[in-house]
Amino acid sequence: MKTFILLLRCPDRKGIVARISAYILSKGGNMISADQYSTDPQAGELFLRIEFFIAGRDIDLAALKKGFRKIADIFKAGYKFYDKDDILRMGIFVSKPGHCLFDLLYLWRSGELDVEIPFVASNHQEHRRLVEQFGVPFYYIKSCKNNRCEKEMLSLAREADFLILARYMLVLSPKFLKDYNRDIINIHHGFLPSFKGADPYRQALRKGVKVIGATAHFVSKELDAGPIIAQAVERVSHKDDLNALKRKGKNLEKRALSDAVMHYVEHRIIRHNNKTIVFEK
Amino acid sequence: MKTFILLLRCPDRKGIVARISAYILSKGGNMISADQYSTDPQAGELFLRIEFFIAGRDIDLAALKKGFRKIADIFKAGYKFYDKDDILRMGIFVSKPGHCLFDLLYLWRSGELDVEIPFVASNHQEHRRLVEQFGVPFYYIKSCKNNRCEKEMLSLAREADFLILARYMLVLSPKFLKDYNRDIINIHHGFLPSFKGADPYRQALRKGVKVIGATAHFVSKELDAGPIIAQAVERVSHKDDLNALKRKGKNLEKRALSDAVMHYVEHRIIRHNNKTIVFEK
Amino acid sequence: MKTFILLLRCPDRKGIVARISAYILSKGGNMISADQYSTDPQAGELFLRIEFFIAGRDIDLAALKKGFRKIADIFKAGYKFYDKDDILRMGIFVSKPGHCLFDLLYLWRSGELDVEIPFVASNHQEHRRLVEQFGVPFYYIKSCKNNRCEKEMLSLAREADFLILARYMLVLSPKFLKDYNRDIINIHHGFLPSFKGADPYRQALRKGVKVIGATAHFVSKELDAGPIIAQAVERVSHKDDLNALKRKGKNLEKRALSDAVMHYVEHRIIRHNNKTIVFEK
Amino acid sequence: MKTFILLLRCPDRKGIVARISAYILSKGGNMISADQYSTDPQAGELFLRIEFFIAGRDIDLAALKKGFRKIADIFKAGYKFYDKDDILRMGIFVSKPGHCLFDLLYLWRSGELDVEIPFVASNHQEHRRLVEQFGVPFYYIKSCKNNRCEKEMLSLAREADFLILARYMLVLSPKFLKDYNRDIINIHHGFLPSFKGADPYRQALRKGVKVIGATAHFVSKELDAGPIIAQAVERVSHKDDLNALKRKGKNLEKRALSDAVMHYVEHRIIRHNNKTIVFEK
Repeated sequence: MKTFILLLRCPDRKGIVARISAYILSKGGNMISADQYSTDPQAGELFLRIEFFIAGRDIDLAALKKGFRKIADIFKAGYKFYDKDDILRMGIFVSKPGHCLFDLLYLWRSGELDVEIPFVASNHQEHRRLVEQFGVPFYYIKSCKNNRCEKEMLSLAREADFLILARYMLVLSPKFLKDYNRDIINIHHGFLPSFKGADPYRQALRKGVKVIGATAHFVSKELDAGPIIAQAVERVSHKDDLNALKRKGKNLEKRALSDAVMHYVEHRIIRHNNKTIVFEK
Repeated sequence: MKTFILLLRCPDRKGIVARISAYILSKGGNMISADQYSTDPQAGELFLRIEFFIAGRDIDLAALKKGFRKIADIFKAGYKFYDKDDILRMGIFVSKPGHCLFDLLYLWRSGELDVEIPFVASNHQEHRRLVEQFGVPFYYIKSCKNNRCEKEMLSLAREADFLILARYMLVLSPKFLKDYNRDIINIHHGFLPSFKGADPYRQALRKGVKVIGATAHFVSKELDAGPIIAQAVERVSHKDDLNALKRKGKNLEKRALSDAVMHYVEHRIIRHNNKTIVFEK
Repeated sequence: MKTFILLLRCPDRKGIVARISAYILSKGGNMISADQYSTDPQAGELFLRIEFFIAGRDIDLAALKKGFRKIADIFKAGYKFYDKDDILRMGIFVSKPGHCLFDLLYLWRSGELDVEIPFVASNHQEHRRLVEQFGVPFYYIKSCKNNRCEKEMLSLAREADFLILARYMLVLSPKFLKDYNRDIINIHHGFLPSFKGADPYRQALRKGVKVIGATAHFVSKELDAGPIIAQAVERVSHKDDLNALKRKGKNLEKRALSDAVMHYVEHRIIRHNNKTIVFEK
Repeated sequence: MKTFILLLRCPDRKGIVARISAYILSKGGNMISADQYSTDPQAGELFLRIEFFIAGRDIDLAALKKGFRKIADIFKAGYKFYDKDDILRMGIFVSKPGHCLFDLLYLWRSGELDVEIPFVASNHQEHRRLVEQFGVPFYYIKSCKNNRCEKEMLSLAREADFLILARYMLVLSPKFLKDYNRDIINIHHGFLPSFKGADPYRQALRKGVKVIGATAHFVSKELDAGPIIAQAVERVSHKDDLNALKRKGKNLEKRALSDAVMHYVEHRIIRHNNKTIVFEK
């Protein structure tokens, strides 16, 4: 038995689901779950995630994909099939704060987060021992001016299907983003769109907010402005000083980032303009 | 243009969605949303909610339903079609605490809650004036021993497609439930299954919990044990005395009950054993 | 028996609490609760709220206050005594959305919100009947250009000790704020400091946030930038369109505003720079 | 400069705070924070936590305590002074699920959780390597019938000032509790008082709750019934199967347990009957 996930988008019109589910049925597929979202059923765009399994040993994914092309052409759909057995490689960049890093490593080690981790790279040495204890290669990459060190980072990054910035304090250059050209998920320790940039907890403290948040989002050229995937929030009071906000915030950061990563790995996210559609389990 | 909602359940097997969506397409229907849930894709039960519209003036609902019967028979499905223009009649029973009652009345008056309200009935007179101000008939029904007054309540209740117990303090008899035989939604001011029965906030206070809750659920023969539809929770501390718990709890009760009622009215709930499947918007 | 609340602020130094509690004791007072907050125990500012009762019939509040002046002078403290029997008069301005208005009216009617309500004023007629049903005077004040109608509003406002803008859509002029010169609490239907100004739910929708919020704050000259008192938040998803955000938001607005009003009426709030210290029960 | 924490309880009456704060002042102390809670200001019990510092090098804690005895006698108070420089020793018992264990270890390693960890003991070998990587001694203690192995556990436990059961699956015997006679904090993966005992997530699944929770509490003789310290909750839906509940639950367990441990270590908790007073920061 093999399980597949189909992600698809197309202009909404009659009959799409009927046609696609008929196709899956014709290939012997049995739907496990189907999620759809339409921006406007009469003139909008349709987004679809279908998870299905096909019993049997010799399933021809190439034929499955090829046959689907005709349907996709009819509906002017963009789509992708994922084989659930294909494990994604997740690279991690991190600076000094290690709470998100170790939360992910432990999730991975306990079998909940089903990825390969080809490397953890950091501009600090301090996480080396613990990372290596998890059996993951650790790379120290000195930070240097004008992104001159990004070359080394890029060649590392290319070993990964996607990157996590698990509290990585340096800003990746537009050139890096362009050259890497795969998904990068960042955890921002503020409730975006409030408190972009440096030291968001200090910004929150100054403003006197009564709720703080953390935001996991795709990295885009504009700083802290890419599509939001997950946000976690918590009440605070005047009693919470900067350290208290940071401490409470760490729980939020771990939470928002691990949610986002789980959704990503299970192919539950579709980017749409500057937003995300997240078909939650 | 007319909009319909189909709720369906059947043993899960291949091709159900394909067959049903093809049928809807054949009738000129355009799917607005489709939600499905399978207890187990290989040997479980499938639950489906499809919302679709059909353009045109003379849509033959009878033919739509009749044609569907064949499909339903193939899949051994139980199902129901709802016409979105058919407004449900919601009866309300209430005792002294009026916060849920007026929350519902205001939701209704502002157009968000799309129902008719044939009556509000109470074993207290005090809500009469405000209820009547909303243009809703108010009935005072004296509470009497051994449920002797339920006859009057039952004849009232039958004017409604479903009942809300918006903090109604008397327990309806099994006979009433059997005779009425339609859905009844109760708001319980405790976090079920903890704190069933009388005075749940006092129970919570004694136990020293750090989070309280309210639970909207279908009424069943066993007290406070019917299928849960919605729950709302909030943190409390040792400082919260009984009055504080009651005050915080009122927000939770309004919240859980209005969520449950909105889901019910939009036909988003399927009862399954002693649980609910709620296809949230 | 009479109950008093003392709110006080002064530069922090040794012995303040000792001196003040000794004073209260010397007047026969018994402390019910004491909350303090220091921005920095070594060189900061201290904020204090003490609730105490004095048994007996003939309590001399004037003497109580007068005697306290000496202590306050020693510590360079600003302070105020409140007699719990003095009921505040709360004026309400509102536009079309009435959910916050009726939430407050019901809280008041049920005895939880202990204020007088001298008036509800609106630039729309539609809430008249229901407001009057609650026994509260309703004033229709036509909105006119350049705040020319603010004169009438000001003379109304002066009947109240503080004002609530319960979704009042017009911006009060700096002149009005200066002339009124008492506290005004506004509910903003966005998670400040994000989404200031008009149509915050539309802004949130465009940004694709995964959590929305509402903010109750004191009105200051700068729009939607006054000290935040309370915030309420809730998760949303891509499925939530503008109407869904508005609907979910209404619960948040009612929640944040009623929390803020309750804190205000119980003298639990101290403004400090552009922030609030809220001594929650 | 030295910082002290005073925890105190006594029958409530006039003048307690005045007398105690005068005493602290007389010893050169400067209050950092003071929290009090009274079950009933007129005839109840008063609970007090005062944090204060005394400048200077040669502070005589013995004299501080001795002098206080007189005051305590007057008010019939039970009390304890804690020197903030005295670091508590926290022992950890754990079974297979390691998420709480590593969350605590990382909190400790990053300096947020200020304790010594004399040991981690487990009835499974699998956490040995990672625990030892943190520099913490690991002990494998085979589980055996009739609590015969508790002798070894007890001698280990006595190296610790308090114990954490970080998902420890064996029930400690009444004899162990009596012999150890210090505080033990357990994390229960259910929303107590619902779902005591084994497999609470399965119980929650069967009941069809819409919110799950985790509970950190002191261990008492009665299983899962000791005083609750902290609870964390999260919404779930019909889509969440047992694995999903377990996964979501892990976040709640980490959260509730780390909150409870932080409160405990900072001497913020007072046990009162079968409840806790938690003076949160």
